[in-house]
Formats: sequence, C-alpha cells, structure tokens
Amino acid sequence: MNMNVKLYPSERTDDLLTHDLRIIQSDEVFSFSMDAVLLARFAGIPPKGKILDLCTGNGVVPLLLTTRTQAAIEGIEIQPRLADMARRSVVLNSLEDRILIREGDLRELVQVTGHGQYDAITVNPPYMPLNGSDIKQNTHHAMARHELGCTLEEVVQACTRLVRSGGKVSMVHRPQRLGEIISLMREYRLEPKRIRFVHPKAHLEANMVLIEALRDGKPDVRLLPPLIVYNDQGIYCTELMSIYYGEAPASAEKKENGV
Amino acid sequence: MNMNVKLYPSERTDDLLTHDLRIIQSDEVFSFSMDAVLLARFAGIPPKGKILDLCTGNGVVPLLLTTRTQAAIEGIEIQPRLADMARRSVVLNSLEDRILIREGDLRELVQVTGHGQYDAITVNPPYMPLNGSDIKQNTHHAMARHELGCTLEEVVQACTRLVRSGGKVSMVHRPQRLGEIISLMREYRLEPKRIRFVHPKAHLEANMVLIEALRDGKPDVRLLPPLIVYNDQGIYCTELMSIYYGEAPASAEKKENGV
Repeated sequence: MNMNVKLYPSERTDDLLTHDLRIIQSDEVFSFSMDAVLLARFAGIPPKGKILDLCTGNGVVPLLLTTRTQAAIEGIEIQPRLADMARRSVVLNSLEDRILIREGDLRELVQVTGHGQYDAITVNPPYMPLNGSDIKQNTHHAMARHELGCTLEEVVQACTRLVRSGGKVSMVHRPQRLGEIISLMREYRLEPKRIRFVHPKAHLEANMVLIEALRDGKPDVRLLPPLIVYNDQGIYCTELMSIYYGEAPASAEKKENGV
Repeated sequence: MNMNVKLYPSERTDDLLTHDLRIIQSDEVFSFSMDAVLLARFAGIPPKGKILDLCTGNGVVPLLLTTRTQAAIEGIEIQPRLADMARRSVVLNSLEDRILIREGDLRELVQVTGHGQYDAITVNPPYMPLNGSDIKQNTHHAMARHELGCTLEEVVQACTRLVRSGGKVSMVHRPQRLGEIISLMREYRLEPKRIRFVHPKAHLEANMVLIEALRDGKPDVRLLPPLIVYNDQGIYCTELMSIYYGEAPASAEKKENGV
C-alpha cells in the first residue's frame, strides 16, 4: 500500500474487501456500485493477454480484475477528474505495472490502439438514454448515468472494434434495455453467449443484467441461474457474500439459492 | 363433455386439471409439454377480440386460453393428423363456438385472413434449428421439434403480419435461441416487453424462456422473477402447482419462490 497518494477534499479510501485492495471514492464525484463488482466477478477474462475496461470511472473493475488474472489491464475514462482518481487508486495499491488508466473518449481509442488488440473487454456504461430528458444532476454523476458522452450503440461499436475475433465482451446494464443490447451486439458481430439476471429478491423483477458476448461467435446462449441479492430476511444471500468477501464455498451458494 | 368423439388407436384423453377440460393425446403422435401450459398462463391476452395460436399441435394452448378470456380463439396446425386431434378435443369439450382449428401453413395464413386481424398471438414453435442434422424421429415428433416446416424467422414474420399494431405476441422457446429470437422480433417490429425464464431448480441454468412482445412497441423490457419448477426436494414449487391446478394463492407463490 502506497500511503503517499494525495486525497482531495471529499475523497476517502474504501476497502474493496479482497486482496487488501483499497479505492479512492467521493460521494460528491463518484463511488462505485454493486454493478461494477458483479461485472468484475462475472466477466470471462483470460489468465494473461490484454484486457480493457471501458467507462472505467474510478477504476474499480480494473482493480478487482487484478485478483483474477495476470493479464495487462487498461481502463479508459472520459472524465479527467475520475481518470485522475482511478490513477491515484492504482498507485495507492502499487499496481502501476498491472493497470494503465487512459483519459479519453472510447469512440476514439481504436485510432490509438488499432483494431482487435484486446482479448477481453468489460464495460459498465451509462444506463439511461437521453430522450431529451432534463438532466439536473451534477456533471460527474450525470455523465456516469446518462448517455451524455456516448450512446449504447457507440459503446457496442467501440467494443467490436477493440476486441479481437474470438475475444469476449462483458457488460452490465439494466434489463429494461435488454432488447436493444442484444440486437445491437448481434448487429456488431458480438454474439451473446452467457447471460445472468440479478434480482433484488427471488420474487422480484430483475434490476440488473450481466451479458458476455463472443466476437464472431455462433448463436447459443447459456442463461445462468438467477443471482438473488437479498434473502427474505433482507440479508445478503451467500453468493453475494462470497462475491464481496470471497469466502463462501460453492456448495453454500447452491444451497442459499435453492428454493 | 361430448362423449361421442372418436378416439384412434394409441389415443387417450387426459385431464387438463382445470375447468374440467380434457384433451386427446397420443405418445405415438403428439402430447403437449409443460412449455405449452406455461405459455397459456404467461401470454398477455385480451378479455375479448381475436386470438391466434400458431403451431397449435393438439390444441392445448387454445383449450387452456378459454379459461382466461371470452375472445374468439383460433389455432393453426400444419400436420393434418394433429389438426384433426385438436378439432376432436374442441368437440370433446363442446367448445366449437369458442375455438376454430385451421389446418394449414402459418406462412400462408395471412393470404386467407388479411394483415393485422388478431389482437394477440401465442406460439410454441419447433425449438431445434435444422443445421443439416440427421432427423431420426418419426415425422409427427420431428416436425414439432425441428424447424422442418418453418424457420424461427418465418414464425416471427408470420406473427408480425397477423397481429394488429399494439397487439401482443407471446412465445415460449429455449434460452439457447434468445439472441436470435430478440433480434428477429425487433427486426420485425415486435418489441420484447415482458420476459420470464424458467429454471428446473433455483441453482440451475434456465431451460425455457417466455417472451411477450408488443407490435410497434417502444423498447422497455420487464424481466420477471425466475420461475423455478422444482424445489430442493424435487417437488413442484407452489407457483407451478398453482399453474397446473389453479389453487395456490399469490402469497404462497411469493413465499415459495423466496430464498
């Protein structure tokens, strides 16, 4: 842990609860959500090679991916303030040799890197389409939540240009957008292969979807068991505990998710 | 119950377990599966108007739909032997004034009926693409299971031609085909609005998907709670019991599906 990293007013460092990782956050600027944690756990990634995280925010997905792979990991973030936070979190964890944070526009990255240079891509894009809606939040939050900087189609297009043929693209999004996501992915030759829905409770509608697609793959979807967040007592289910704390055995997960 | 209906060798009449409905089946020719029962329960249908069931087989979906609506219900089946079974089941239940069974090719039906004449359509199409695979089953079963008579795209195209703008199309299929189903539906202006996955057990992958789409709808998917078939003791979950027997109260379903 490098303790010489500067923190700005409103910033704090939070424990990522695994492998002694810490992350710089700020309620005023940006804090990661469960979505990013689930994406980092769900995504199909290679043991080595090159991985890219789009819309990386404060870098939570690259930080968590270091616990699952020896690959070189890059993150790209369009907001300078967030890219700077992410870079300082990388230094905080002494992971400068594993993670590179780029500040820039994902739509232009391929001009820098060339086509098909990544073995896997992860992305937790802004969820809300603009639809001419009045954005009243501050800019940092608004850009993370609304398609101000890029549309869903531009995100999918960037993925397909940046990932190699046979490489995987993993996305977390809202189920409301499922139709658009799947048809855009297939239009851009990203074939959905593995999908998991996240339900707040077993009897409630899903509020999150995790999708892994294969560049130039053939149609064949595996629809994984539902991921249930809270049990009837309002306590995290065993699998969620395991994802956050990396402790519960696989057998316990099964039991917990069983009806 | 009209007891003067003729049964051929190998045929039997089974109880549909609701509203005293009975159906003619044959292990050698055709028996309905849970898929059709779940579709008949899931489908969004109007209280009156006109409903069409494509690939109706022995007519199980039209028979079950009579318990949920006063609409006029039609079924179309390409196999003469099955269409005849379906017609005799209609007579068996004295439902000739509610259900019309057509024998014919769904691809040609619009030439008979005209465009957009139905308020809702249900379909339990053959699940398996041909892919040059060697079909060793007998013709009745093979046509019900493989895309011999029509492809998925032809089914979707027929739906979009036959349903009115603002009408609903409900399909049951295998999750493996989800990518194709969603992109074909959207290509043909059927917007997926309500999706439910069926898992044999809570910790297993889904083996069935129910999709309701709206003709000319806007993108916005509701992803319903998972439907779990068996509990950990290998016994039907309460909701399944309720679907088959129409008895369990909604509160019991919630409890049963809760983790």
